[in-house]
Amino acid sequence: MATKPTIPQGTRDFGPDVVRKRQYIFNTIRSVFELYGFQPIETPSMENIETLTGKYGDEGDKLIFRILESGDSFSKNFFENLGSYLKARYDMIDYYKHHVPGFENTENPFNNPLWEFNPEVLEFISEELLTEEFKRKYNNIKKENLPALKHNISGKALRYDLTIPFARYVAMNHGQLTFPFKRYQIQPVWRADRPQRGRYREFYQCDADVVGSNALLNEVEFVNIYNDVFQKLGLTNYTLKINSRKILTALAELCGGADKMLDITIAIDKLDKIGLEKVTEELVQRGLSNDQIDIIANYLQISGSNDEKLAAVQSLLSNSEIGKAGIAEISHVLETTTNSKRQTPNLIIDFTLARGLNYYTGIIFEAAAPPEVKIGSIGGGGRYDDLTGLFGVPNIPGAGISFGVDRIYDVLEELALFPQTIEQGAKVLFFNLGVEESTKAYTLLQELRSKGIAAEIYHEAVKMDKQFKYAEKKGIPYVVIIGTRELENDTCVVKNLATGEQQTIDSETLKDFDFAR
Amino acid sequence: MATKPTIPQGTRDFGPDVVRKRQYIFNTIRSVFELYGFQPIETPSMENIETLTGKYGDEGDKLIFRILESGDSFSKNFFENLGSYLKARYDMIDYYKHHVPGFENTENPFNNPLWEFNPEVLEFISEELLTEEFKRKYNNIKKENLPALKHNISGKALRYDLTIPFARYVAMNHGQLTFPFKRYQIQPVWRADRPQRGRYREFYQCDADVVGSNALLNEVEFVNIYNDVFQKLGLTNYTLKINSRKILTALAELCGGADKMLDITIAIDKLDKIGLEKVTEELVQRGLSNDQIDIIANYLQISGSNDEKLAAVQSLLSNSEIGKAGIAEISHVLETTTNSKRQTPNLIIDFTLARGLNYYTGIIFEAAAPPEVKIGSIGGGGRYDDLTGLFGVPNIPGAGISFGVDRIYDVLEELALFPQTIEQGAKVLFFNLGVEESTKAYTLLQELRSKGIAAEIYHEAVKMDKQFKYAEKKGIPYVVIIGTRELENDTCVVKNLATGEQQTIDSETLKDFDFAR
Repeated sequence: MATKPTIPQGTRDFGPDVVRKRQYIFNTIRSVFELYGFQPIETPSMENIETLTGKYGDEGDKLIFRILESGDSFSKNFFENLGSYLKARYDMIDYYKHHVPGFENTENPFNNPLWEFNPEVLEFISEELLTEEFKRKYNNIKKENLPALKHNISGKALRYDLTIPFARYVAMNHGQLTFPFKRYQIQPVWRADRPQRGRYREFYQCDADVVGSNALLNEVEFVNIYNDVFQKLGLTNYTLKINSRKILTALAELCGGADKMLDITIAIDKLDKIGLEKVTEELVQRGLSNDQIDIIANYLQISGSNDEKLAAVQSLLSNSEIGKAGIAEISHVLETTTNSKRQTPNLIIDFTLARGLNYYTGIIFEAAAPPEVKIGSIGGGGRYDDLTGLFGVPNIPGAGISFGVDRIYDVLEELALFPQTIEQGAKVLFFNLGVEESTKAYTLLQELRSKGIAAEIYHEAVKMDKQFKYAEKKGIPYVVIIGTRELENDTCVVKNLATGEQQTIDSETLKDFDFAR
Repeated sequence: MATKPTIPQGTRDFGPDVVRKRQYIFNTIRSVFELYGFQPIETPSMENIETLTGKYGDEGDKLIFRILESGDSFSKNFFENLGSYLKARYDMIDYYKHHVPGFENTENPFNNPLWEFNPEVLEFISEELLTEEFKRKYNNIKKENLPALKHNISGKALRYDLTIPFARYVAMNHGQLTFPFKRYQIQPVWRADRPQRGRYREFYQCDADVVGSNALLNEVEFVNIYNDVFQKLGLTNYTLKINSRKILTALAELCGGADKMLDITIAIDKLDKIGLEKVTEELVQRGLSNDQIDIIANYLQISGSNDEKLAAVQSLLSNSEIGKAGIAEISHVLETTTNSKRQTPNLIIDFTLARGLNYYTGIIFEAAAPPEVKIGSIGGGGRYDDLTGLFGVPNIPGAGISFGVDRIYDVLEELALFPQTIEQGAKVLFFNLGVEESTKAYTLLQELRSKGIAAEIYHEAVKMDKQFKYAEKKGIPYVVIIGTRELENDTCVVKNLATGEQQTIDSETLKDFDFAR
């Protein structure tokens, strides 16, 4: 009867230490979001499938985890749909028997080796066998019935990110919301990616977005939010890359038109991975001319300080209105944020930053860990013009950022930046040395807890050795011992396990003892 | 293109106020769990289907949300399995054509109206038509192929509760854990229940469990945890019902044997809903004799103070060892917890408490809201002997409790017990009255944030009216106004929106202003 316990590929259990460290990251991010006036919302783990599909590209759609309608509903829908599927299929078999060479003598066409029970195999049957009538029937099965079946047995799916559910939420509630609406959301998302190191099928996203505002002030706020969070986490040496989609648009115009935008951003997105030479090759394949590629290569090689970069791009795009707008926006964000009296954000212009997702329209960000840690981006975001338009509510512009908690976790671990205190559970363990002793101990224990000191008592009266070991394994820094003598004298022994130091004190005064480690 | 936005039946969006109130409940429960030395763990939302099925009874199994293998995997598995399914099905059709009256002349059996594409319909075909051979084939399709198909297209499911994933976690990690292992877990669970008022398809559970200990001390701790949490939430008038499965076992023995245990607990579980008379009727139907039913009726009618109830049950079960053990345990918990110097837990013996789930073996609990709120239980739990045995690791006894957060939320709302402070976001809104003014305001804003005061600035320079309205709608208690005059004088106006009181202060001193509401 016993099942050998396993967990699904790409998912993780988190033990106490890990949960506490993750909570520390979440709480730090949450506290900064709150400090900036962002308000929390939560959306359901499941969304209707229509809400999600078509929003993440073909590759994204494939990675959405769909949920099967439960219990009887599965069988019911399965058979109802299977019925029509089988009917069409049987008609097709029938057709085969009467019209397709090689099948005519087969009593049961399923026994014919050509028939593989897989419609995909039909793709390989020579074209001349496929009459128009058959094609129609085949398409009917493949294109219509199967998706209908799939939809009816699974009309819901786990959310793939927090942005689309947020857009759906705003579209559903825009009559009640106060704009600009500033929300943050810290919840898990699910993706059916092939699991590998650092890539999980369930992971948290921490997003802050503001919708209903065109003001560049929001981008300034986001830069400061990144800075505050990373400073608080001790990642003082992070960098925040900034660019503008407007500049990329201007570049595309310079290379022959807006239709080149996608080609250019896709190619640029790969720059880190494949290098300038291969990017150039790809641009050739995508049909760009040598002149156009030269412009792009020049653009990608812009370097120097932020000011030098701005000057260089300014001369390159001097004839483009949208280019100038993008440059002005970046300049404004740079000036406004670095004038602050607080720690200066490590803001670096990176004209090679593109951020694949197409919905960005203005400034874009990407945060990188301190250079000594080799890891991808630890955050990113940007401005978008019309996210809720997908749900029938147009003209709500916005901007948003996201923190990559799993990677931030790895960075803090590698740089040993987690504060020691967060791993700590109970501060005190009361030893259990008998019925009377433990009764007395329990009273004192409850006094400590009333004062907010996390404490516990060993569950049974066993040898002290075992109780010491329990405290050590759980990392409990203090033990309180009440034996026969202490019971008589109304005292207790307090022992600091790290230093070995121990003292006998009056029971009365235990509640005032300083249990700071 | 636009999709009309909806969310799945039985799920909820939570706006800012609701998230904050829910966080308040979670944090209160979490802080008490921590105070008692419980450590957090988290398990994945998805479990392998084998981990979950067979653990919640037939009804529970139907309510598990299964996850479809994603993308290509769906089609692949679907067709592979469909192949063998179709093969069996086709064989059956073939058999029909040759052996079953009424089908023999049908070229395509799918055209026969008797054939409804739904195997369930076969149930209604007269028995004499079903030969042994056919039955075998039919069963082959129904019982074997379909579950295989279902399994292959969905080998994972969303967790149904936190207890089974916890047992799975302990079984997987028992070599590394320190026993007794005291964990808490606050995560959502999913159930495909028919949605109705107060019943959702996604909801949170807050569980604390200790495994690896037989000590009754754990039950005492749980009583105190319930008390601490409910006191902190202001639910001073809650009640905690206590009973023991051992007493119910003794009652079953008295009624003719342990095999009556299930009948009795099921009947007793319904007492609240259908009353003693109907319970009696049900017990008659279940084959209990009048004498046996008299004993049960006597038992169910035990009333009075805790002491009176104990005395009554003692005389009823005086010959049962297990009954005496149960009574002794309840007595001990009552004495130990009510002797505490802290607020007395509202612990009430309720011998009609059974708690349906079969895994309980000792003391059981159920928490009820203050009587003025009509709502079901707001928490429950008990002792179990061998939960991890399901996963091949026997002999790890434990006990656990759970809080029903959605109901607690409703109770706090109804009794107006949520503290006002928790609904508050930003404390201060800086008005935006122009470029220079807002630049100055931004510097002061960042100073406040550095001091931990949540604050924001209006996103654009518009009429004061609009900015006031924004502050009001978001419930921001203070506005800070910096106009031309304030800019000149290096001052700012601080206005309390609740009282209407306003004062002009030096910019320098703003950071020391007391923004307590």
